[in-house]
Amino acid sequence: MISIEEALSIILQETQVLEGEEKNILSCLNKVLEEDIYSKDNLPPFDKSAMDGYAIKSEDTNLCKDAVSVQFEIIGLLKAGAFSSEELKHGQAFKIMTGAPLLKGADAVIQIENVNVNDDKLYVHEKVKSGNNVIKFGEEVKVGEVALAKGIVIRPSEIGVLASLGYSSIRVHRDPVISLLITGDELVDINSELKMGKIRNSNEYSLMALVKNLGAEVLSFGVIEDNKDILKNKVKEALEKSDIVITSGGASVGDFDFVEQVLKEINADVKFKSVAIKPGKPISFAIVDKKLFFSLPGNPLAAITTFEEFVRPACEKMLGKEVVCDNTFEVILCNDFKAKEGRKKYIYVNIKNVDGKFYAYKIGSQSSNHLITMSKANGIIIMPEGVGYKKAGDILNGKFIFK
Amino acid sequence: MISIEEALSIILQETQVLEGEEKNILSCLNKVLEEDIYSKDNLPPFDKSAMDGYAIKSEDTNLCKDAVSVQFEIIGLLKAGAFSSEELKHGQAFKIMTGAPLLKGADAVIQIENVNVNDDKLYVHEKVKSGNNVIKFGEEVKVGEVALAKGIVIRPSEIGVLASLGYSSIRVHRDPVISLLITGDELVDINSELKMGKIRNSNEYSLMALVKNLGAEVLSFGVIEDNKDILKNKVKEALEKSDIVITSGGASVGDFDFVEQVLKEINADVKFKSVAIKPGKPISFAIVDKKLFFSLPGNPLAAITTFEEFVRPACEKMLGKEVVCDNTFEVILCNDFKAKEGRKKYIYVNIKNVDGKFYAYKIGSQSSNHLITMSKANGIIIMPEGVGYKKAGDILNGKFIFK
Repeated sequence: MISIEEALSIILQETQVLEGEEKNILSCLNKVLEEDIYSKDNLPPFDKSAMDGYAIKSEDTNLCKDAVSVQFEIIGLLKAGAFSSEELKHGQAFKIMTGAPLLKGADAVIQIENVNVNDDKLYVHEKVKSGNNVIKFGEEVKVGEVALAKGIVIRPSEIGVLASLGYSSIRVHRDPVISLLITGDELVDINSELKMGKIRNSNEYSLMALVKNLGAEVLSFGVIEDNKDILKNKVKEALEKSDIVITSGGASVGDFDFVEQVLKEINADVKFKSVAIKPGKPISFAIVDKKLFFSLPGNPLAAITTFEEFVRPACEKMLGKEVVCDNTFEVILCNDFKAKEGRKKYIYVNIKNVDGKFYAYKIGSQSSNHLITMSKANGIIIMPEGVGYKKAGDILNGKFIFK
Repeated sequence: MISIEEALSIILQETQVLEGEEKNILSCLNKVLEEDIYSKDNLPPFDKSAMDGYAIKSEDTNLCKDAVSVQFEIIGLLKAGAFSSEELKHGQAFKIMTGAPLLKGADAVIQIENVNVNDDKLYVHEKVKSGNNVIKFGEEVKVGEVALAKGIVIRPSEIGVLASLGYSSIRVHRDPVISLLITGDELVDINSELKMGKIRNSNEYSLMALVKNLGAEVLSFGVIEDNKDILKNKVKEALEKSDIVITSGGASVGDFDFVEQVLKEINADVKFKSVAIKPGKPISFAIVDKKLFFSLPGNPLAAITTFEEFVRPACEKMLGKEVVCDNTFEVILCNDFKAKEGRKKYIYVNIKNVDGKFYAYKIGSQSSNHLITMSKANGIIIMPEGVGYKKAGDILNGKFIFK
């Protein structure tokens, strides 16, 4: 049995960032850029007006002071999307809309709200600086510059940058494909009535949801009969079709737990077979043909806990994302908490943030590891190895779940 | 011009939570439950073993102490999914796998790791309590109890609970449909070369990404010609087909800004026409036939900023989610920051969290509101109205973006 930290370090060492693939930009949302994006244009591609107003020569306003206004002759109108090859002369003004290119001879724009107009005469009452309300050619980015650097996560703002630069598709690290194989002869379909000895298959659904939340692709093989050869064939098929294979159940020491035997028969390189975590001890991890294999416990709470603790970081690394190994913080206990000594215990709780301090409240029995308990929780507190009791007011490390 | 807070309060007052619709549970991930979910079963549906081990009568172990072991006769094997109608007698043990139903007469399970077995003889070395390693009938939830309450967000754990209770579909608040109409004759398609006066349409893409991130449905009308009648017809069509209509551009005081005229002609109830926020002042909000209409600025940074500040909360309320109106926290400035006095200014920065304190670093020119600047930011700091300068070491409120 190894520690959580050792287990995670082994998993990450064996995990490779996946190669890039070209996708249309909207499909790249929340993915990681696999190439530097160079600008093929100067942005803006011309000096342009930042406001609706009048393009003028700024030096013509030098005479403005106190109550003295300067008069201009309005000689034309330029809307966004249009351009003019005329050259502005002293005393002339050109009405110009936001985004329109500044015409030759003009070096400033005065805002429409700050002037008076009478027929084709413009009256300016204030001194205007050169460059006023003008966005300069190439000010945002120049041809050949790196606009977006390899490794960043594509957010709505980056989608906008890519569109403005004319990139309709880019290369991002591809999504891992994760296969799910659920074992357990006690499991019946979600739509079945419960007969004696049977419970419904819930792990397939919660694991599919966990994979979906990570932005990875899920390939579910459904419930596999408790039969070694059938399981072996499905595992082989899953290994061919995916980057990560997950089994749930069939991993403890029961007579009908075949996962370990199957791993032996397919010459898997088993890296560990149990971790000092509660819930979740009987989790094993192996490498087969460079693919990652996780055997998660069948207990629903343990399956979700170990997925989040061990599969998620591997998946994030594959996606090219930054893997945060320790996102815990100090939490003040508001109840007494008890747990069996031994393994590190993850206790599901309700964490409240009050004025920047975090407080943990008990939400129900932990011992039976009910999913309904978890559904009332937004976080966990971690009872260290060898500690079995903490009282209200004590401090433990904790973290939020599903974040 | 009204304040950001007033604007948000008006928007939320006019926004209704959307009705529920039935969906399969995996499609409900991250949606809000619109009904109470009652349990149709007792879970577990029988007393069951929490471990691989041996079912026994606990009182038979009363004689165990120090080096004294008690011997049992192993009379059968029960795997998960099976059941036995036999009744256990004193001195008998039944091998039992995790999840299998306890048989009559047994009241405890002793773990396989803690015993010795020789042929059909079991040797127990410790006193076992009644109920040891037994998960009791109905312990997690009983028939008729509320298992999941209306209003909660469906996470992977809730998907698991629903599956275990036999719910393959449930009612969640439906997704809002958001129409996008992009205006501006200066805009050309993403794949076009830039001709004089033209820039590429980026707002359509960044707004689509923003809507996608919220889990709402987007209906894009693309770039609409700067022509009042065409715009009016498209706005009418969009209002029929969606819950929220967004235009970008066409909203300031330029001669070719038709949105305001269109709103007048269709008898929109315009609630406000500008907000004291920078970037983003020329944002207007109206109600037409109970639909929400947002006219966002055409400037890409202003469009994204106002979407996040005003459209997102409306969308979250429609989805039945909790709307957090103030998610700011104190940020220590690491550079001097300057801005025009007047409106409340959102300055895009890089916020670092060091030992629980937040620090803001400048990332580039703000004045020109470049999207590339935003792509380097992970947060904003907020320069209050009437304040134009803050120096390194000063504190401002700030928040993370896209969270």
